Amino acid sequence: MPNAGFERFAERGGTLDIENGSVFAPAFDAAGLLPVIVTSPDGGEVLMFAWMNADALARTLDTGLVHFWSRSRKRIWKKGEESGNTLRVLELRTDCDQDVLWIRAELEGAEQACHTGRRSCFYRLLVRAPDGALSLRPVEGV
Amino acid sequence: MPNAGFERFAERGGTLDIENGSVFAPAFDAAGLLPVIVTSPDGGEVLMFAWMNADALARTLDTGLVHFWSRSRKRIWKKGEESGNTLRVLELRTDCDQDVLWIRAELEGAEQACHTGRRSCFYRLLVRAPDGALSLRPVEGV
Repeated sequence: MPNAGFERFAERGGTLDIENGSVFAPAFDAAGLLPVIVTSPDGGEVLMFAWMNADALARTLDTGLVHFWSRSRKRIWKKGEESGNTLRVLELRTDCDQDVLWIRAELEGAEQACHTGRRSCFYRLLVRAPDGALSLRPVEGV
Repeated sequence: MPNAGFERFAERGGTLDIENGSVFAPAFDAAGLLPVIVTSPDGGEVLMFAWMNADALARTLDTGLVHFWSRSRKRIWKKGEESGNTLRVLELRTDCDQDVLWIRAELEGAEQACHTGRRSCFYRLLVRAPDGALSLRPVEGV
């Protein structure tokens, strides 16, 4: 039941309510998913990006640990369930349209949010040569 | 022609190349779109989240100004084209799977990334009462 948890969140009102109100009424997309940005505690670094369905969001709120919906495995996925590198929610914000979440999280375990063993999934910079050629360059210290 | 610009980017190789290589081969989704996270110059604040198609990404790289694909208006949208509140790319990173972009950007004009007139679209915090009730609270200074 990938969409369990919907009853936890309010129905969408009009634009004014959505943008200015205090009612949390997240807009899940046609697949029942919400994009989620996870940053470091000070917000200074984007650690990862993934998706939540209503159930994953409900579990995240209930446990304080970030849960996602894995689109490839088609199941709820507690971040770090195998590696122990869990993410503890410090703060959760939504955007004007309430269709995106931003979570500031504490890295637990080995402090690696990326499955490649790095702290952040965003470990490469796009570089554009004078002739327009594009390449990726590792970012130091990530 | 929403998908113009594809020829600018490499075709996807195997997982090792995608995760560890220097070839930029972004994975656009089934709708031809890539999620894009925009943060402040120091990365400390998520300003907005939107989508790029290949053409929007190519124009962003060519001009240094952030362009998106508007899913509602179904057209390329230069951020700030009407308001003058453009976003200048300082750094662009991709993630392990190369299916998300993170842009650190300078806010130009009135320094408002959100269409509601705020610096960031993420101006509300999710608060959970002891009884589990959820509500949104404005974040000071956003």
